Amino acid sequence: MRQILIIGIGAGDPDHLTLQAAKAIARTEVFFLLDKPEERKEMIDLRRRILTEHAAPGHRVVAVPDAERDRTTPAYREAVDDWRTRRADLVEGLIAEHLGENGTGAFLVWGDPSLYDSVIAVVEDVLGRGRQSFGYEVIPGISSVSALAARHRTTLTRVGRPLQITTGRRLAAGMPEQVDDVVVMLDGRAAFAEIDPEGLEILYGAYLGTPDEILDAGPLAEAVPRIREARERARERKGWIMDTYLLRRTGK
Amino acid sequence: MRQILIIGIGAGDPDHLTLQAAKAIARTEVFFLLDKPEERKEMIDLRRRILTEHAAPGHRVVAVPDAERDRTTPAYREAVDDWRTRRADLVEGLIAEHLGENGTGAFLVWGDPSLYDSVIAVVEDVLGRGRQSFGYEVIPGISSVSALAARHRTTLTRVGRPLQITTGRRLAAGMPEQVDDVVVMLDGRAAFAEIDPEGLEILYGAYLGTPDEILDAGPLAEAVPRIREARERARERKGWIMDTYLLRRTGK
Repeated sequence: MRQILIIGIGAGDPDHLTLQAAKAIARTEVFFLLDKPEERKEMIDLRRRILTEHAAPGHRVVAVPDAERDRTTPAYREAVDDWRTRRADLVEGLIAEHLGENGTGAFLVWGDPSLYDSVIAVVEDVLGRGRQSFGYEVIPGISSVSALAARHRTTLTRVGRPLQITTGRRLAAGMPEQVDDVVVMLDGRAAFAEIDPEGLEILYGAYLGTPDEILDAGPLAEAVPRIREARERARERKGWIMDTYLLRRTGK
Repeated sequence: MRQILIIGIGAGDPDHLTLQAAKAIARTEVFFLLDKPEERKEMIDLRRRILTEHAAPGHRVVAVPDAERDRTTPAYREAVDDWRTRRADLVEGLIAEHLGENGTGAFLVWGDPSLYDSVIAVVEDVLGRGRQSFGYEVIPGISSVSALAARHRTTLTRVGRPLQITTGRRLAAGMPEQVDDVVVMLDGRAAFAEIDPEGLEILYGAYLGTPDEILDAGPLAEAVPRIREARERARERKGWIMDTYLLRRTGK
């Protein structure tokens, strides 16, 4: 039986790798790397470093440009569906071409495969088409959410209270009601600067676990200009930004 | 400078340990183990196995019974505050007595220290008292939430949608509004059986990552009697239960 491993490799620190992930990498024959245009040199180098350190001798790497999502259309849902179909085509082709009988292939996923990542869905789509047969397994990873909390030495959940994880797109409509602790991911637009900052504090992190890590924390109103500036400077210097943050109602 | 490490050790599989956590364990001189009455033999054995494998020769282990929370009082908040004070007394005493000048001590935390865990808060309380001085660091771990998603091979977040993490106590009041995906932790009372199951599916996991792991999934109405029974059987056999689950509105 052919086997696919979907391996969470952590948020950016190569030591976020779990022993389970290291062992999964060591038993993989072929790694499928879906290169994203927004994934810059440091990330590709880090992935390479992880393979050099943990993959078995003789492993193969098949790197292909990932399907790109149309970000220009306002039809968000349709653009995502179309992107998903094209990614399934891509992954189906990779498996058909490169995964031999009883072979083990792997996808490496930044952070944890369960949070705002699409590889599990794509692999399910390919299975659902019924033309390729294989088993698959998911290896959890340290998410940027856990890394953010650890670097700020805070819990995400206050005693007996809920936590919400959401996107920048949704936050732009305002802090969710009935929760006082909200982690925001995928915020390309700096939605934290668009909402009413009254009574909110932010715990911010960019490039978590890497040498370029940026941390900031404080009342949201005071932090917004600081974080905006740090973000712009980092984006100019590096060409990309990867960040997440916790918003917390302080009641003050 | 004395140093305290708060180390997430994963949800129950010793291979959930990250390389960062393994290295932190290897540089620790004294481990402070707060033994909980509900933590049974398997968990203590697993912790011991992790230390045998990763701790440096000559490390010390100081195990003390953890302060117990009064679960009989209806004054939840006060009971938690009182418990927190007694735990701070305990931890302050451990540090004063066992952590030498320039020493490194560690607390091992199941799952991730950022989700419904109190060690960070206790250490902050001790620092705030000002009688013991030390630096401290948090090492993130694989949470039972990530482990649950991986074992069910699902994402917790659907495309562009939010996730809420909450407690059994809160779920008993009903599914939160405005979110369709809810992870429930700390559910001693089987709150999943108390809510309206209409349009909900459950992805359930107990003893995740251990040889006793129980997984179940399906429409909530059908799954409730099955999971209740499996839970009762497991609790009788093992004397304790450690579980978590995802509730998902299916729209069907």
